[in-house]
Amino acid sequence: MSDQNPVFIPGPTNIPDRLLSAMHVQTRDHRAPDFVETFAPVLEDTKKVFATTTGKVITFPSSGTGGWEAAVTNTLSPGDKVLVARYGMFSHRWIDLCQRHGLDVQIIECPWGSGAPVDRFESALAADTGHEIKAVLVTHNETATGVKSDIAGVRSAMNAASHPALLMVDCVSSLASMDFQMDTWQVDIAVSGSQKGFMLATGMAILCVSPKALAAMETAKLPRIFFDFRDMMKANASGGFPYTPPLQLIYGMRESLKMLFEEGLDNVYARHFRLAEGVRRAVDAWGLKLVAQSPDLYSDTVSAIYVPEGFDSNALTAHAFDAYGVSFGIGLGEMNGKAFRIGHLGSLTDVMVLSGLATIEMAMADLDYPVKLGSGVAAAQEYFRTSRAPAAKAAA
Amino acid sequence: MSDQNPVFIPGPTNIPDRLLSAMHVQTRDHRAPDFVETFAPVLEDTKKVFATTTGKVITFPSSGTGGWEAAVTNTLSPGDKVLVARYGMFSHRWIDLCQRHGLDVQIIECPWGSGAPVDRFESALAADTGHEIKAVLVTHNETATGVKSDIAGVRSAMNAASHPALLMVDCVSSLASMDFQMDTWQVDIAVSGSQKGFMLATGMAILCVSPKALAAMETAKLPRIFFDFRDMMKANASGGFPYTPPLQLIYGMRESLKMLFEEGLDNVYARHFRLAEGVRRAVDAWGLKLVAQSPDLYSDTVSAIYVPEGFDSNALTAHAFDAYGVSFGIGLGEMNGKAFRIGHLGSLTDVMVLSGLATIEMAMADLDYPVKLGSGVAAAQEYFRTSRAPAAKAAA
Amino acid sequence: MSDQNPVFIPGPTNIPDRLLSAMHVQTRDHRAPDFVETFAPVLEDTKKVFATTTGKVITFPSSGTGGWEAAVTNTLSPGDKVLVARYGMFSHRWIDLCQRHGLDVQIIECPWGSGAPVDRFESALAADTGHEIKAVLVTHNETATGVKSDIAGVRSAMNAASHPALLMVDCVSSLASMDFQMDTWQVDIAVSGSQKGFMLATGMAILCVSPKALAAMETAKLPRIFFDFRDMMKANASGGFPYTPPLQLIYGMRESLKMLFEEGLDNVYARHFRLAEGVRRAVDAWGLKLVAQSPDLYSDTVSAIYVPEGFDSNALTAHAFDAYGVSFGIGLGEMNGKAFRIGHLGSLTDVMVLSGLATIEMAMADLDYPVKLGSGVAAAQEYFRTSRAPAAKAAA
Amino acid sequence: MSDQNPVFIPGPTNIPDRLLSAMHVQTRDHRAPDFVETFAPVLEDTKKVFATTTGKVITFPSSGTGGWEAAVTNTLSPGDKVLVARYGMFSHRWIDLCQRHGLDVQIIECPWGSGAPVDRFESALAADTGHEIKAVLVTHNETATGVKSDIAGVRSAMNAASHPALLMVDCVSSLASMDFQMDTWQVDIAVSGSQKGFMLATGMAILCVSPKALAAMETAKLPRIFFDFRDMMKANASGGFPYTPPLQLIYGMRESLKMLFEEGLDNVYARHFRLAEGVRRAVDAWGLKLVAQSPDLYSDTVSAIYVPEGFDSNALTAHAFDAYGVSFGIGLGEMNGKAFRIGHLGSLTDVMVLSGLATIEMAMADLDYPVKLGSGVAAAQEYFRTSRAPAAKAAA
Repeated sequence: MSDQNPVFIPGPTNIPDRLLSAMHVQTRDHRAPDFVETFAPVLEDTKKVFATTTGKVITFPSSGTGGWEAAVTNTLSPGDKVLVARYGMFSHRWIDLCQRHGLDVQIIECPWGSGAPVDRFESALAADTGHEIKAVLVTHNETATGVKSDIAGVRSAMNAASHPALLMVDCVSSLASMDFQMDTWQVDIAVSGSQKGFMLATGMAILCVSPKALAAMETAKLPRIFFDFRDMMKANASGGFPYTPPLQLIYGMRESLKMLFEEGLDNVYARHFRLAEGVRRAVDAWGLKLVAQSPDLYSDTVSAIYVPEGFDSNALTAHAFDAYGVSFGIGLGEMNGKAFRIGHLGSLTDVMVLSGLATIEMAMADLDYPVKLGSGVAAAQEYFRTSRAPAAKAAA
Repeated sequence: MSDQNPVFIPGPTNIPDRLLSAMHVQTRDHRAPDFVETFAPVLEDTKKVFATTTGKVITFPSSGTGGWEAAVTNTLSPGDKVLVARYGMFSHRWIDLCQRHGLDVQIIECPWGSGAPVDRFESALAADTGHEIKAVLVTHNETATGVKSDIAGVRSAMNAASHPALLMVDCVSSLASMDFQMDTWQVDIAVSGSQKGFMLATGMAILCVSPKALAAMETAKLPRIFFDFRDMMKANASGGFPYTPPLQLIYGMRESLKMLFEEGLDNVYARHFRLAEGVRRAVDAWGLKLVAQSPDLYSDTVSAIYVPEGFDSNALTAHAFDAYGVSFGIGLGEMNGKAFRIGHLGSLTDVMVLSGLATIEMAMADLDYPVKLGSGVAAAQEYFRTSRAPAAKAAA
Repeated sequence: MSDQNPVFIPGPTNIPDRLLSAMHVQTRDHRAPDFVETFAPVLEDTKKVFATTTGKVITFPSSGTGGWEAAVTNTLSPGDKVLVARYGMFSHRWIDLCQRHGLDVQIIECPWGSGAPVDRFESALAADTGHEIKAVLVTHNETATGVKSDIAGVRSAMNAASHPALLMVDCVSSLASMDFQMDTWQVDIAVSGSQKGFMLATGMAILCVSPKALAAMETAKLPRIFFDFRDMMKANASGGFPYTPPLQLIYGMRESLKMLFEEGLDNVYARHFRLAEGVRRAVDAWGLKLVAQSPDLYSDTVSAIYVPEGFDSNALTAHAFDAYGVSFGIGLGEMNGKAFRIGHLGSLTDVMVLSGLATIEMAMADLDYPVKLGSGVAAAQEYFRTSRAPAAKAAA
Repeated sequence: MSDQNPVFIPGPTNIPDRLLSAMHVQTRDHRAPDFVETFAPVLEDTKKVFATTTGKVITFPSSGTGGWEAAVTNTLSPGDKVLVARYGMFSHRWIDLCQRHGLDVQIIECPWGSGAPVDRFESALAADTGHEIKAVLVTHNETATGVKSDIAGVRSAMNAASHPALLMVDCVSSLASMDFQMDTWQVDIAVSGSQKGFMLATGMAILCVSPKALAAMETAKLPRIFFDFRDMMKANASGGFPYTPPLQLIYGMRESLKMLFEEGLDNVYARHFRLAEGVRRAVDAWGLKLVAQSPDLYSDTVSAIYVPEGFDSNALTAHAFDAYGVSFGIGLGEMNGKAFRIGHLGSLTDVMVLSGLATIEMAMADLDYPVKLGSGVAAAQEYFRTSRAPAAKAAA
C-alpha cells in the first residue's frame, strides 16, 4: 500500500494528476485537422521553455538517448572530431554514443563531481586552429553527480577562441526545472525529454535546434532515418509526423506547458532552488558531503550524496525501498556504492521533499549510520519555513 | 503545485490510484446481467469487513448522514425512545437527526474526549424496566475528538440489563480501519460510508443490518422511501436497485475490497494502529495533549490535539493549508479553535504520515508555538523504524 | 470486447471521456477555501440550464428519487393534498412516494402514452375552490413511455384556475437535453439528476427551487434531515455542505456545464431533436409504432416503441445485449413485454445513434420480426444527412 | 461532441477503457525490483503472440519505423544487398530506409494491390548463387492497400532456393489481429508496434528476433546505439533498460496481453476476419472494388476501397470527418485520391463497424456517389447476424 509515496529518483519524475489525466486520451486521427491545431502550438510554446525565438523545436518518440543520437547524426559526418568533457555517467554515455557512430572524440577527463572545465575547453579550442572540432558537447546537468555546468562559460570559451564548432547541450535533467537560455548562450542543439521537468511519462525526446545547426544538417553524412530532422520538420510543417505520433504525450505536453506557464518559469526555477537547498541543508545537518565539489556546481534537480566511509550506498537505497517503499537514486558508475542520490525535480513540494528526507533518515538509522533522526528534516524545515515566498506568507 | 500532497483530514481519505482507476468506468446498463454479477459479490464481501455472517449489507447513494437516517427511519416509529450519549460532534448530530424525526431522545451528556459511558448506559437501561427504549445509539469512533468507544462494553451493559433495545453503531470513520465485530458485539445496525476506510469517493452509505433489526422494520412507522430497506433489499435480491445505482462507486467498492483482503484486514488494522501511534509519539514530543482522555480511548483513525493555551487551532490549520498546501482537520463544535485533528486513515504510509507531521511542525513554528522543529518527526521516525513488521525487516 | 459500444438506455447516459477525466480527481479538503471557489460557480451556472434567475439550485448526493423526496418533504405537511396525473412508471412512482409520506394524492388516471392532461388539471384545480391542493406534480418527460408533457400548458391551467398550488416538475430525463424554462413556466421545484443530460455518473440529485417554494418550506412539517433544504442552503452559503460532499461529481458538474455552454444550450436541444427524429424515422421505416400517442408528445430523449403483436420486447432487449453487447431500455410497468426503448440523450452523435439502430435491426431480424435489415438505418441516414447544420455542411 | 465516435483508421486503433486505465499509472522506479517483476513476464508473454518459443522479444520506445531501423542496423552492414518487393507505401518506406542506410536494395516492383511475389522472390533468390542477398524484407500486411502477403510462401521460396538470407517481416498492422507464425514461417525478425493489434498508445516498437538474426548481429556494422539489440538485451537480462523505459506502455502491454489471452488469440483472429468480411460485403453492396486484387490477399485489418471514376477519395474522407466527426484512412501514395481505407483492427465490435459503414454511406450520398443508403449496412448486418459464434447464439 505504498503507491501514494513520491519517488525521489532524478526522473522519471512524479506525474501530477492533471498530467496523468491529460495523457488519458482516446485515439484520435493524427492526420485530421484537429491534430494540427493541437501540435503546432505545442512546438511553439516549447520554445519559450528553451528561451529561444530562433531555434526550432523537434520531438521524437524516444528517450533522451534518442535525442542525443538525433543531435549527433543530423549534424555530423563519420570521422568528425567532437570535444567532450567526461565528468559523470551521462557525459560518458554521450561519448560512447559518438564513438560508436565513428566520430573522433577528443575527451577531457575531469574528476566526477566537477563540471564543464571552461578553461580547458578554451585551451583545446584555441589549440584547434584548423577548426577540426565540429562540435562541443556539454552535459548541463550531470544527473550522476548532481553537478550543474556553466554553459554560458563554455560559450564564452568558444567565443574567446573564435571557434565555429557547434555547441550541443544535454539538458535532459535540467530543462523546465533550472534556468536554460538557448539564445543567450547560443546553444546549437539542446536535448531534453518528456519525463523530467515536463513531469510526463517517458517517451518523447525534445530537442531545440539553432539555425546554424540546421545548416550543418545539409552536409552531415551520418545515417539517420527515424531520427532525421528533415523528415520530421517537413512533416511537422504540414501539421503531421513522418510516422505515428505519440498522441498521448503531445496532449500531455500541451497541459504541461500550461502548468509551467501558470506557475511562471522563473517561479518554477525558484521552487527547484528552494527544494534543492532544503535537501542540501539536510545533508549538511547529517554531516554528509555532496559529490558536487562546490556550491556553484550544485544542481537544483538532483543531489548526489556520499555515504560515510565503510557504508554501501546500494544497501541504503535498497533498504529504503524494501522497508519504506520509497525510491531514491542509486550511485551510478564511479559513484556506485559510494553515493546515493535524491532527485528533487518536477512536480514536488516542500512537503514531499520532507517525506523523502524523513525516509532516508530512517533508512540510515536502520543501517547504523551516524545520523540523528529528525536532524536533516529539521534543517530543511527551518529553511523551507523561512524561505517561503512573501506572498504566500502574507496570505497565511 | 501542491496537488500531490496527501490530505490529513479524517475523511474523505486519500484515494489510491488503483481505486481512482476502478471508479473511472464508462456507463454500463444497470439492468443488464453483468451488473448483477458485479454487485452481488460486493454485498457479500462487504459482510467480511463488518465481521458478520448473519447481517445484511445495504447501501444507498448518499453519505453517512443518509445512512443514519436509514437506520433510524427503517426501525423506529414517531415517539419511540432512544438512548444516546453525547460526547462529540457526530454523536450530537445523530441526536439532532433523531429529534427532528420526532423520536424521544434520552441523552447522556459526557465530556468531549470521553467515550461511550458503559456504566451509565447500563444504569439507564436497567432503569428502563418497561423497555421503552427501543434503540441505543453509539458512535464507535467520534471523529471530532479522536475517541474510540467500547462497543463490546455497551453490548455487555445491554445484556447485563437484559434489555431488548436495538444497538445501532456509527462506524463511519472506523470501519475498514479499526477492528469491528458486528456479530460478536451483536450490533443491530452499523452505519458506514465509502469515503473513509474504503478509500473511495464520497457518495455511498454502507450499512449492515441484523435479523433483529430487519424484524423491527416490519412495524416501524417513520416514513422512508429513498432510504427504505425493503425496497432496496427487494431490488438487490434480483440484482438491481430501486433507482439508478452509483455504478462507479460499486466498481470502486469491488476493488477496494480486493485491496483490503490482499493486505488482510488484521494487517489493515495493525497498520492503522502503527500510523496512529507514530502520530501520538509526535504529539507527546511536542508537549501537546490529545483530546481523548485516556489511551484506551485513542482512535487509530484520527487524533484530535489540543493547541497550547493562547493559540487558535483554526489559525494553525488555515496556515498549514495556505502556506504548505496541506489539509488537516479543524476543531469541530466545542473543540473549534481549541484543537486540530490529524486524520490517519485509509490509504496511508509511514512516509505520508511523516510528511504531515513535518508540515504541521513548520506551521506551528511559523505561528510561534513552543515546538521544536523535527522533534515530532523524530519521535515518529523512531517508532516507525522500530515497529516495522519483522517480515519487511527481514527483506531489507 | 464490447466495452466500447454505446448504451441506448435512457440514462445513465454515455459519459464523455472529458467528464470521466473531470471526475477522476484525488480527494481534496471540502472545508478548504478552494472547494468554495469551485462549488459556488457550479450552483450559479446550473441556474442557466434551468433557465432561471430567481430560483435556487440545491443538490444532494443521491438519485432523482432522492430529489423527489426532497421536493415533497421540504414543502408539504402530512395530509396535504397533491394533484398528480399517472401516465407512466415515473409518474406512478412519484405518486407512491407521496402516499407513503402520508399525503392525500388526487390522481388523474391517463392512458400510458399520453401526457399531462392540461384540461383535466384545469378542471380539478377549478373545482378546488378551497385551495386544498397544495401542489401539482408533473413529470416533464415520462421515461417509461417516451412522452414529453406540456409544462407551459399546465401552468396556464393553474393560472386559469387562479390556483396557488406549487408546481413541481420531474425533469430528470429532460433537463440539459430538452428545453426547460423554470422562470417562464413558473415552476416551483424542478428535480433532475447528474446521470442524464449532464452526462455524469449517477449520484447527485439536482433541484431548482423557486422563492415561493422556499417560503412554503417554513411551514412544511414532513420530516427531513438528509434532504433538508435549509441545512443545505445554510452550508452552501458559506461554501460548504452539511455532510461530506460528492467532490468528484461536483468537479464533473463543473466540466459538464462547460461542455453544455460550449455547445450552446439551444444547440444541445436541437441536437437531441435531430437524433430523436432520426430514431423516429427508423421506427416508421420498420412499420412500428411509438408508445407516445401524437407528435406533440414525442420525447427527444427517449423513444418507447411497441413491438408487433405476438412478440416479446423483453426477449428483444435481452437478445440485443447477449448477441451484440448493446443495452436498450426494457419496457417498464404496463409496457413490459410490449415495448422497448431507445435512449437518445446525453453525449451522443448521429454515428452512435446509427449503430444502435443497426443493432436493434439485427436483433429483430434474428427474432424473425417483419423488419427489413438496413431500412431503419437508411431512413435515419437520409434524415441525418439532410438535416445537418448548414455551417457544418459548408465546411464539408 | 463527437469524442465518443470510434476511429476507422488502420492504427493507432481505438483504445479500450481497460487499457487507458492500465496506462494511467504514476511514475515508479524502473530500477526497483518490482519493475523487473512486471517487465520480464511481458517479454515472455509477447512471444506467444508471435507464436515463437525460440525468438527473443525486444522493444524500443519508438514507432514501427524505429523498429524497422533496429531490424536493419542490428543485422546488416553498409553495402549489404537486401531483396524487397515494392507494392505499397509501407514496403516503399522500408526500401527508402535501407537505401539511406547505404544498403544495396534489389527491388521487385509489383502493382499496388498485389502482395509479396513469391515466384519472383524465388527466381531472384535462385539467381543469387553467391548469396549476396543478406536479407529478404517483406511487409506482411500492406496498410496502404489492404493486402496480406503470404509469408509462409516467401519462406518456401527461400527454402526452395536454399538461400540463407534473413527473413525480415513487417507485421506492424497484422500482429495480434491476424495469424502470425514466427517459428513455423522461420521469420528472423518481425517488427510490430504498440498502437495496432495491441490497442495501446503509440510509442513502443515491438520486435521478435530469431537466434539466426541474433548471430548476424555480431558482424553487422551499421551504426546503432539507441536501437542497439545488445544494449537492450543486456539491460533486459537484469530486468532493466539501457535508458528510461516507457513505463506506462509496459503496464499497458501487460494488460493488453491479458485481454488478448482472455479472448484467445484464435478468437481474436476470427473476430478480425468477421469484421473485415462484413466490411467487404458492404463494399460489394455499394458496387465498389477493393484495391486488393484477389480474395487471398484481403487483409483482415484494413480495407482499401477504390472510389468510382471521377470522384476524389480525399474529399470523401475529409467530408466524413468534417460532417460526421469520423476518421477513415486516406489513400496513401499511388492511391491518394483514388481510394479510401477503413481500418478494422484492434478493439472493435460488429456494432462499431456498422457505425463506420453507416457514416461513410452518408458521406458518399452527400457527395453524390451512386450508392444506396443502408445498402452496405444491410449487407454487413446480414453477414454479422448469420456468422455470430454459435455459443453467443445459443445464449440469445
